Amino acid sequence: MPPVAPRSGDAIFANIERVNAELFTLTYGAIVRQLLTDLEEVEEVNKQLDQMGYNIGIRLIDEFLAKSNVSRCVDFRETADVIAKVGFKMFLGVTASVTNWDAEGTCCSIVLEDNPLVDFVELPDNYQGLYYCNILSGVIRGALDMVSMKAEVTWLRDALRGDDVFELQVKLLKQVPEEYPYKDDE
Amino acid sequence: MPPVAPRSGDAIFANIERVNAELFTLTYGAIVRQLLTDLEEVEEVNKQLDQMGYNIGIRLIDEFLAKSNVSRCVDFRETADVIAKVGFKMFLGVTASVTNWDAEGTCCSIVLEDNPLVDFVELPDNYQGLYYCNILSGVIRGALDMVSMKAEVTWLRDALRGDDVFELQVKLLKQVPEEYPYKDDE
Repeated sequence: MPPVAPRSGDAIFANIERVNAELFTLTYGAIVRQLLTDLEEVEEVNKQLDQMGYNIGIRLIDEFLAKSNVSRCVDFRETADVIAKVGFKMFLGVTASVTNWDAEGTCCSIVLEDNPLVDFVELPDNYQGLYYCNILSGVIRGALDMVSMKAEVTWLRDALRGDDVFELQVKLLKQVPEEYPYKDDE
Repeated sequence: MPPVAPRSGDAIFANIERVNAELFTLTYGAIVRQLLTDLEEVEEVNKQLDQMGYNIGIRLIDEFLAKSNVSRCVDFRETADVIAKVGFKMFLGVTASVTNWDAEGTCCSIVLEDNPLVDFVELPDNYQGLYYCNILSGVIRGALDMVSMKAEVTWLRDALRGDDVFELQVKLLKQVPEEYPYKDDE
């Protein structure tokens, strides 16, 4: 039997359960506001958003693999492409692009022009250090972790800080080999 | 020109921007977990979720009125019907029903069989006092407030506490008359 082809982000997005994007945007805004009130330090809020995202990412990967028919990616290049083209479409309804690859193929940028998290959002002057969308970097980090890729995810550009787009740098630190219940030499 | 007919919840839902429901569910779960960690007291978490919902509701009503073509409801009965049939569909993609009207038409129940907020959620024993979906009661309260209806919204049944459905009692406390820039006797 030929392998099932991976489904496009659009096809998946059209067939999954969804909720209103504005409700999501406002709910996410409520989290950020709550964290700013409770934690006070912007740096702590950044950390907490990333951690929340990580916890979401390690669960969301199951839904992703189940619905997308994406199987093992041959390398990190393919993985990054799948995150940008299938993952972002499937979960947020937007498409991202992948650029700025390093020579080794272990570091790239995911660029997001449209970002439903920030509709109607403006950062007040005293929160300029906030990475408002830090939950996204956490989600990517968490999801990659579950497919044995340790990665570092950092914001290079942020439209809320005056840049023209959102740019996330994803750097593969270590690819943990899958463990089998047997050894090759046995 | 005849008035524009209100659009059905289904029609609106099909044409608005949406995000993946599981992402929303997990994000909401992350808020609740965060509040439980930060506030410790379940009663405080219930209050905070309600307050967050209120803040969302007072903003969501604009999107609702803009997209639904719903204009002034003739009475609270019609309002409750619109919340259940159009509002829930438009924002969460589910339909609710309205029952248990009192004789005066100022108190009813909104019953929700399907609730995307609680997919995969189970309450641990020590959180049995938690109204996990309290953000919803806040949203309804906030949205009603913006159309001059002060209401009290209480959970009567909660599937996470062993009931078969979610039932929200909505009680109209006071209908604030709209103020015009002129007086009738002038």
